[in-house]
Amino acid sequence: MDNIEFYREKINLALKEFFDKKLKEDGKYSPKIRELIENVIEYNMRGGKRIRPAIVIFAYKCFNDKNNEEIIKAAISLELMQAYLLIHDDIIDKSDLRRGKLSMHKIYGKKNEDFGINMAILAGDLCSSYTYDSIIECGFPAKEKNKAIEYLGWIINREIYGQTLDIIPGFSNLSEEDVWKIYELKTATYTTQGPVYLGCVLANAPLDKIKKLQEYATNLGIAFQIQDDLNGIFASVDFIGKPIDSDIREGKKTLIIVKTLELCSKDERKFILKEYGNSSVSEESIIKIRKIIKKCGAYDYCVDKFKELVTKSKNSIADVELLEEGKKYLIEMADYIGGLF
Amino acid sequence: MDNIEFYREKINLALKEFFDKKLKEDGKYSPKIRELIENVIEYNMRGGKRIRPAIVIFAYKCFNDKNNEEIIKAAISLELMQAYLLIHDDIIDKSDLRRGKLSMHKIYGKKNEDFGINMAILAGDLCSSYTYDSIIECGFPAKEKNKAIEYLGWIINREIYGQTLDIIPGFSNLSEEDVWKIYELKTATYTTQGPVYLGCVLANAPLDKIKKLQEYATNLGIAFQIQDDLNGIFASVDFIGKPIDSDIREGKKTLIIVKTLELCSKDERKFILKEYGNSSVSEESIIKIRKIIKKCGAYDYCVDKFKELVTKSKNSIADVELLEEGKKYLIEMADYIGGLF
Repeated sequence: MDNIEFYREKINLALKEFFDKKLKEDGKYSPKIRELIENVIEYNMRGGKRIRPAIVIFAYKCFNDKNNEEIIKAAISLELMQAYLLIHDDIIDKSDLRRGKLSMHKIYGKKNEDFGINMAILAGDLCSSYTYDSIIECGFPAKEKNKAIEYLGWIINREIYGQTLDIIPGFSNLSEEDVWKIYELKTATYTTQGPVYLGCVLANAPLDKIKKLQEYATNLGIAFQIQDDLNGIFASVDFIGKPIDSDIREGKKTLIIVKTLELCSKDERKFILKEYGNSSVSEESIIKIRKIIKKCGAYDYCVDKFKELVTKSKNSIADVELLEEGKKYLIEMADYIGGLF
Repeated sequence: MDNIEFYREKINLALKEFFDKKLKEDGKYSPKIRELIENVIEYNMRGGKRIRPAIVIFAYKCFNDKNNEEIIKAAISLELMQAYLLIHDDIIDKSDLRRGKLSMHKIYGKKNEDFGINMAILAGDLCSSYTYDSIIECGFPAKEKNKAIEYLGWIINREIYGQTLDIIPGFSNLSEEDVWKIYELKTATYTTQGPVYLGCVLANAPLDKIKKLQEYATNLGIAFQIQDDLNGIFASVDFIGKPIDSDIREGKKTLIIVKTLELCSKDERKFILKEYGNSSVSEESIIKIRKIIKKCGAYDYCVDKFKELVTKSKNSIADVELLEEGKKYLIEMADYIGGLF
């Protein structure tokens, strides 16, 4: 935990430095542009676990133990990408809150909802562009930066593909396999696989070790999504920073719901298909859905799966020869994610 | 004209090759992902003047006369960027048509408008990511690719800033200076300045000549926007591929409207402030607005300005020592844009 907190601070400082430069250079165009950049900064600096950039740094440290500030500058690209995807996701999911404060389309949409959406599309686009800027501005050699950008593109494409599968209506026929595909495309790629690869590539790691680290990443990324989904239905609003009914209201395609539909009774299934994805679902129905999820065994199934994946993740690097510091950090990260639920 | 057509064909072929690879590699994930990529392809291959990639190639040919297919592969990045920006713009402007066919949010929004917007956000995001992919995949050395990506970021940031100024409500107090700022940020950067710079950078052109070519680019880019605005009010739907009332309906901030508000009578001004930006403006009011624009002298002012800028653009490179072929192409391009109105 201490190391994660230590690097979280460093990541926040690097983000601040990146934004200060943008504000100084581009804020001068016009007060409204300055306001846009300031809103993007506020959104990014609200907090957040900074898991993705931390993983970049930790993977890098598996192969390079020099104190290199440039890896922190490169790592913030993942945080900017995260902001980009969240801003657009919140429009798509009609989420009003993010990290306990207004989502971007709500910040701009106080008087006019359409204007809010339009400005949030642009704010997301700006974070997308900043993502690449941050790699270009870091001090790695051109060849490594190119590889990093190539991989950023790979991550973003897959995230968009996963998001596409996620928002296409209907989950009544969704299989567990479909959900795994969404998880792998939408979450594992940009939460863990991408960050691990970015750190490896910038450290010029050998391919066989990258492969082992990818096993760590895939298992941990899917574990992360499962806890996120569990928290999305069972945690308190203070803990996740958005209303707890949002996953149910949005009809999010999660392992827990697919498993519930598989295990529950016919009547319960009918009830869930009616209420899950109902944007004005009642408090009462939410409580009933929660009960069904626990009673039918889907809850325990997901918690077990989550724990199993975290363990698998740690085991996959246990015997790999890596620099001690980086390896220790990656194990700490797996434990940290293991403790999120 | 012949050369522009010749390269348009080459650009279309390079785009097709780029997309074929994406479809083959990523289309396999799922039929719905394949459909998304196919929609992006159809949108990109509808036609379009391909001015931006052509300018990349022509600027490159001012400094390098070897037949290099890689410059065409790099140039398509500007076309992908254009698709990205147009898809998101069409959501923002609520435009139903693009290049004579349905805009992306309309393709996906036949049954459900919100779903259409959500999918168009993702389709635009995908084109954004493809923009960078196309540079990464071309065969230039890493250092040049980095410079190109740095500049792509510069272009996109400025386009977003310009778009921000454009969509912030109100034009009653807009000055000619404000409009120039929007034109420079929103159009010149990505229509001409960016493409010229990209071609120069990939050809390793000397800084003093890049500066001269930027003069050419800035003048031509603003000229391009003025004709686009004039056509947006006066051309036929067949010519511009979208309804001719859309600029009036959207209340687009253009030189022609600012100039009209400055030159027309008090009553006419009142009428325009009421009707310009009215999303359900009547046919009758459109005809009246057109008449006011012509009568007060704003129309002639803009046409003169347009011609003056095209001439200025050509003059700015007339005496610069450049390779004959490239220079000839750039002059042809200025004449081509000069003939668009």
